[in-house]
Parts: sequence; structure tokens; C-alpha cells
Amino acid sequence: MSKNLTTREQDYSKWYNELVVKADLAENSAVRGCMVIKPYGYAIWEKMQAELDRMFKETGHQNAYFPLFVPKSLFEAEEKNAEGFAKECAVVTHYRLKNDPENPGKLMVDPEAKLEEELVVRPTSEAIIWSTYKNWIQSYRDLPIKINQWANVVRWEMRTRLFLRTSEFLWQEGHTAHETKKEALEETELMNDIYAEFAEKFMAIPVVKGAKSENEKFAGALETYCIEALMQDGKALQAGTSHFLGQNFAKAFDVKYASKEGGLEYVWATSWGVSTRLMGALIMTHSDDKGLVLPPNLAPIQVVIIPIYKGEEQLQQISEVANKMVKELRAVGVSVKFDNNDNQKPGWKFAQYELQGVPVRLAIGPKDLEKGTVELARRDTLTKEFVNQDEVVSKIKALMTTIQDDLFEKAKKFRDEHITAVDTFDEFKKVLKDKGGFISAHWDGTSETENRIKELTKATIRCIPFDSKEEQGKCVLTGEKSERRVLFAKAY
Amino acid sequence: MSKNLTTREQDYSKWYNELVVKADLAENSAVRGCMVIKPYGYAIWEKMQAELDRMFKETGHQNAYFPLFVPKSLFEAEEKNAEGFAKECAVVTHYRLKNDPENPGKLMVDPEAKLEEELVVRPTSEAIIWSTYKNWIQSYRDLPIKINQWANVVRWEMRTRLFLRTSEFLWQEGHTAHETKKEALEETELMNDIYAEFAEKFMAIPVVKGAKSENEKFAGALETYCIEALMQDGKALQAGTSHFLGQNFAKAFDVKYASKEGGLEYVWATSWGVSTRLMGALIMTHSDDKGLVLPPNLAPIQVVIIPIYKGEEQLQQISEVANKMVKELRAVGVSVKFDNNDNQKPGWKFAQYELQGVPVRLAIGPKDLEKGTVELARRDTLTKEFVNQDEVVSKIKALMTTIQDDLFEKAKKFRDEHITAVDTFDEFKKVLKDKGGFISAHWDGTSETENRIKELTKATIRCIPFDSKEEQGKCVLTGEKSERRVLFAKAY
Ligand SMILES: [Zn+2]
Ligand SMILES: [Zn+2]
Repeated sequence: MSKNLTTREQDYSKWYNELVVKADLAENSAVRGCMVIKPYGYAIWEKMQAELDRMFKETGHQNAYFPLFVPKSLFEAEEKNAEGFAKECAVVTHYRLKNDPENPGKLMVDPEAKLEEELVVRPTSEAIIWSTYKNWIQSYRDLPIKINQWANVVRWEMRTRLFLRTSEFLWQEGHTAHETKKEALEETELMNDIYAEFAEKFMAIPVVKGAKSENEKFAGALETYCIEALMQDGKALQAGTSHFLGQNFAKAFDVKYASKEGGLEYVWATSWGVSTRLMGALIMTHSDDKGLVLPPNLAPIQVVIIPIYKGEEQLQQISEVANKMVKELRAVGVSVKFDNNDNQKPGWKFAQYELQGVPVRLAIGPKDLEKGTVELARRDTLTKEFVNQDEVVSKIKALMTTIQDDLFEKAKKFRDEHITAVDTFDEFKKVLKDKGGFISAHWDGTSETENRIKELTKATIRCIPFDSKEEQGKCVLTGEKSERRVLFAKAY
Repeated sequence: MSKNLTTREQDYSKWYNELVVKADLAENSAVRGCMVIKPYGYAIWEKMQAELDRMFKETGHQNAYFPLFVPKSLFEAEEKNAEGFAKECAVVTHYRLKNDPENPGKLMVDPEAKLEEELVVRPTSEAIIWSTYKNWIQSYRDLPIKINQWANVVRWEMRTRLFLRTSEFLWQEGHTAHETKKEALEETELMNDIYAEFAEKFMAIPVVKGAKSENEKFAGALETYCIEALMQDGKALQAGTSHFLGQNFAKAFDVKYASKEGGLEYVWATSWGVSTRLMGALIMTHSDDKGLVLPPNLAPIQVVIIPIYKGEEQLQQISEVANKMVKELRAVGVSVKFDNNDNQKPGWKFAQYELQGVPVRLAIGPKDLEKGTVELARRDTLTKEFVNQDEVVSKIKALMTTIQDDLFEKAKKFRDEHITAVDTFDEFKKVLKDKGGFISAHWDGTSETENRIKELTKATIRCIPFDSKEEQGKCVLTGEKSERRVLFAKAY
């Protein structure tokens, strides 16, 4: 197997596709647009899940599980949401197959097993969940409800890419119900903050927090908050969204509560989610032409030890040293693999673990046995050094934090260098073409202008950053008055 | 809300249905046959998942994720498996909805978005997984593959019951590929053993390990091993299965490997799974007429502390004592809730936590403050005692193990008392009718006899126990020669 990837310079998109497959993260399946997440990729996803789950529970959320299917009549109840997803719905129409009389050994849909009402495979679960919440909520005492679900969802996509856009994907979706608008808005913001903290602290991906424009909002939401990341090719990636749904779903499903004051009020809602798309963000933020680069927090294997030996005796001597290190590293919470597989040469292994992004590689050869050293290589910087065997554990323990921090700082530096303020539309186009990244520009606040800019440049408003300060200016396209800059970019 | 359940004596089936709903474990959804797993029920399922996942990984398995959909042509490739599941398949035929021109605001399936090939919602994943393994396996070096998947599956059921039989359920399915028959058989047995250990040690449910008869085997398997539990109404429940699939799927999907000896061989396969059905087994093994009884290993809350007070000052004094206990109990790994909710009376709370099966309840009142005591109640035995406050933590720590063990012993005693050896068909019918439970009887080994017994009594062969000793006898129905007893029972 050749480990050589197409370089990012040559073809960024091809580099990504090759990397996902060659690093054993995922592959296309026999089902159009659906992926197989392979064990190595899934192990990374599990680490994301564990950390998010911990953060959700710490903030008072509980997990539950709602049906995969949504009856069409429920699906269409909240009109904007239904309209937004109708074009990409997988629909179950029958509940039985039978032997095909004309093709022995083959099956066919049994026309007699047609469902009275079609079932939509959930593209998102607001409808089925709010039809359930209706029965759970009578009084203010039943509120708030703060539930999260880990699930698969299906959105039929015509053009798919592994992790970034697939017809089926895995995600979590939070669905909360509140007494007041204020409380729901606070929840919307809290969860967006949690996503930002998770992205930055755990995944080492810097993000901009902000609000979506009207055009880019979730179908059925009054406000969509988001975290936006920047990939190495200068395109933005929406890494998580948190929606303030107002009373739209409560009204669609008639969910009212008896208030403390004795009135009957519609419930306020939020929903929020991140998906396996985060795997795409992870890959494209940190990786290089040699393959994946993983922050220690997300690496299924944080350290690999490779013996360099001739003959059984040398291997045995090296194994003694290695096994001791394995034990000591595990004792301090570092995951480590000693790869003593005899079928592959060290060079092959070096390339393999580089490709798979293992943060630290230790190599031990006969010279190291003599000198009491080990060669330590960092995946992120590709630097090597010799370390005394008795210092390896403390060195690596510290490195786990260092690498995690360095990856974030590197990505943040790149991101910050690629936020460019422009004041004319010519500049806008020039920066977008030559440099890419986020473009900070004034905008007149209308959908028309956003649409026009998209037609002309393919760039959209990624978000109205929460930290953008008030500043009088003129819309980069129309020259109309504007009070703050927003971030434009081409996006995944 | 009345906490009173129908008693088991009155109507066992109704007792179960009420308990699931009143204890907030699950409820029926708007989708026919599909359930909503509520947070309290889901928290129990998460504990099962965590422990099983740990056991799978410890034995060298990795998680991955395969598509929800199976194209019909792949689904029908392994004929026996396809035949076994065809009658209960949800089928996706279209990928889009559109506005219904005749019903403004309503949606309809877009006839122009008909799939060329229908997609079956997975009832089990052998087909999609083996069509994938084909690309992963070339040589013996690629084997074994030992993968597990946590997923939802759909089997269209006409008559459903919460947890026990639902059209959608959650499960894990392991799918392994091996060089040799021997290795695959060992894996089949290993996983059945792991299920047994999990059921007995973690869930406190005694099980019989054995093999299924021809009639009861998984569609497409050469052997199905299983663990069988006994419910309090004398009916058996299959709690987990592990299948030796031989080379059936390898042949259906043409999966061959180059062997060490240079030949080209079909791969050997296993699959194994447990599902949210285990929730049903849990409930029906331990619970009583007051509600759920949970083994400490599975209890989302292991200890609840309830203050009994008049006025703010008493509450504050009690809270001090309680909060100290909470802290100390958490420090030794016991999950604990201090319920100082002022909206409910202590009596209501007592009943509520009884209903929800919290293993230990502590009550602290003004008298306890004076005496330095606390009232401790065990949910399983319904016994109470006063304990000195400074002994509470060590007492509870020990109780967690004691209750776990006692629940298992109690269930085991019941199960053992309900395995009845019979030698005539009259006895068989009498025991089945008057006592229930497992009937240990000789059987001539034919499907005809098993079918006939099922017609006559509704009892089926639950398993041929692995520990049944050779014993010459005569079939309980036909009088034909038999060499070992098998276990019959009515079953869920
Ligand atoms: Zn640049
Ligand atoms: Zn009995």
C-alpha cells in the first residue's frame, strides 16, 4: 500500500478524500450517499461523544430516545420546518417484502403491505419530540425539559462527501422546553457556548460564535446561533448550531402549560446539534500532506512504540524496555500501543502511524539500549529528539498538553490571519479569490443583498459574530447604511 | 398521580405495562409499534451499554458504524436470512416529499422521486456488513475482524409491547470474520459467555446457557447459542443470542481469503446481539407490586435522601447533615440524590422512589437530628432500620454489594425452583399449567415433535442447555429415544 497522499497544494479536495480512506476513518458504502465509519474513525467519534455527553449532563441535560420514524401528518405540522426538509426525506411506504413470483429467489415490495400513512425517516426530530412533549407538559412544574438524543438521521443528499455531507449521519440533538422566552434564549446561548468550548478546548479548533442571517437559519427557528471554523483551504465549516425555536413548535403541536400566575401559555423551545461532520472539521483543521494530525484528546492511540531490531534476542531486549514504558504510560492515563508486529518493517510502521495521526512515536533500537535512550517524534511538528528512558513518561505526560495547546494556537493563528476586513466589493472579490478565509464586511441586512453576493461570489454570511462591535459603515455591495460587520466566506 | 399498580397476582401483563409507564421508563409513541425511551429508562440502558461496551473492548472488539439502509439486492443475497426477515421489513421507496396540490399546507410523496432500488431499513446488519467485509478481506492477515455496532433496527411487528417487542429497538450487534470454523465457534461461545456473565453479575439475572433447536435458530445461522432467563410469571425470556453463521454470508457475498497455505477459502462468521429487550427482562425479574426494583449496578440513583421537616429552619439543619452525606457517598462512588423539593410531601416521595426502584432510601427527621441517626430503607426487602449517621456511608457502601447479590440469589432460587423435570406428557401439561417455568424433558430431536408440542401447549424449546448431561430417555411426546433433556417453556 502506498502511503503517498495527493498534497493539499495539488488538490485539496482530493487530499481530503484520500486521507479519510487511507487513514481508515470511513469509506463509501453500497448505499448511495451513506458511509461506513470504520473502527479507527469511530473511536475518534466516541471520544467526542463521551466529552460532549459529559458536558451536557453537567449542565442538567438527560438522554432519551425517540422514534426513527415521523408520521407524515406530524412531520408537516410545523410548516417552515417541513418545507425546509421535504425535499430530502427518505420515506417508508411499505412494511413487508415478498417473494417475487417472476424472479425466483428475489424479493419485491408487497403491494398489499402499503402503510396507510407514510413514515418519514427523521431528518431531525423536532416534530416527533414536540408531539411527545405535548403529553408531558401540563404545568410550569413540568418545565424545563432538557433532553438530548444520540441518533442517526437521514437527509437525502445528491452530492455527498465522507463526513461532510452524507445522506445518513450520526449526531446528537438537544430539545428543550421552557416557561419563558428569556430562559429559552439563555439555553440557546449556553449550548452554543458549550459547543465553542468543546471545539476549542477539546478538538483544538478555534471557532467564531455568532448568529445566522435570515437566509442561513434553521427551518422553523427564530434565531440560529452557530460556531464557525475555518479550514486550511480558506473555506468555512459550520461546526455546530443552537436554535431558538420560539413558540413555533409549541403552536404547531398545541403544547401549553399552566403558568404560576394561572394562565395558559405556549411553551418556548430550543434545539441544538453537532454531528459526524465534526470529523471533517477535525481532519481539515489539523492534518498535513503526510496524513492525519490528531490532538491528544481525540487520539485513539496517543503514543506508539516501534521496536527497531534484528533477530529475536534484540526484540526481546527492546520489548522489556517497551513493556515497562507501556505500563507506566497507562498508569498516568496515556493510551499507548507497542507495535511488535513482525510482518511489517519499521519504515512502513512510521508512515502508517504518521498517516493515522498518532501524536507521539517512540522508536527503540539497539543503540538506544546501550545509551538508555529512545527516539521521540512529534506528529504535529515532525520533530525528533532523543530522550533518556527514565524521563520518557514525564516528558510525554507534559507533551500531551503541549501538543494539544500548540495545535490550537497554530490553527488560531491561521484563522486570525485569514479574517480580512474589506470595505469595497472589488476588495471583497479579490480577497476571496486570492486569499480566502473569512471576510469581515459591512452588509445592509437584507436577504436580497446576501443572495446577490452569493450569486456573484459563492460566498455567504457565515455569521454575525457576537463579539462584533458597533461600527458605522456602508454595505460592501449596495452602499446602504450598516451598523456592524459580518463574516462572509465560501463554506462547506 | 396514583402510584397504585395493578398487582402481579391480578394481572401480570397489565402490571408490567403499567409499571413501565408509571416508573417513567418508556411509553408508546405516535408511531405504531415504536416506543419513546424516557430519560429514567434510558439512563438504565446507558449503564448496560457502558458495561457491555467495556466487556466487548476487553475481549478485542472495536466499534464501527454501518448504514441504516440495505439495498434490496444485498438484502436478498443470503436467502435464508432474507426469507426470515422479509415479512417484517420497513421499506424506503422514495426520497422526497412535495406540496400536495390538492391539500394546501400538506405534503405528499413525490412520485418522481422513486428510488430505482428500494432500501430496506435494517432488521439486522449481516447483509450490509458482509458486503463491506468483502472489500476488507483479501488475506489471512486481514483476519480476524471483530466489530460491534450500537444501532437502531426495525422489525415491523403487528403486536408490540414496550421493550419486549417493538418495531424499532436499540441494540448492539457484533459481526466477526475468522479464518477457521474452530475460531468462529470459539467466538460464538465466548460472546454467549460474556452475555451470561453480564446478565448474572451485572443485571443480577440468572440465565441458562444453551443452543437453540432448528426451529428457533436465527435465520441464516448454523448454530444459535443463547441465554434464557425466567420471568416471575413462569415464562422464559431470551436475553441474548450468539450465532455461528458458518460460511453462509461469505458465500452469499463471495468473501474469500488467501490462507497461510496459499489456498483461497471462504471466511467463517459469527454475529451476536442484545437489545433494549433486556430492559423487559430486568423489570420482570426483580420488580414487585410496589414498582421497580433495581440492582445497584443499574440504578441511575442508588440512594435517595428525603428530609422530613416542618419549616425552613428544620430543613436547613437536615440539609446540613444530608449534604455532608451526599458528598461522602459520592466520594466512594455511590450516586445519590437529596430530594429537598418543597412541592411534594415525604409520603409522596417515598412512594415515588419505591415505584422507581431506588435501592436505598434515607429519611432524616427532627428526631434523627437529636439522636444522630437516619432511617435507612432497602427497596428490595422493604426493611427499615435506624443507622448512626457516622456509619451510614460504610453501611451503604457494603449494602450496594449485598443488595446486588441478594437480588441475584433471590432470582436464582426462584428460577431453580421452577425448573421441573417431567417424564410424561400429562405431567408436562400439568406443570406448564399449574406451575410454569422451565420444563426439563426428553425430546426426540425432530422439528415435527417440537411443532406438535407447541401446537398442543404453546411451549417451545428454549434451549438445549450446555450443562445438560447425557441421559438415556424417551421423548415426552413420541416415546422415541432421546439422549439428553432440553428445556421447554412458554416464552416472551
Ligand atoms: Zn493563506
Ligand atoms: Zn411459582
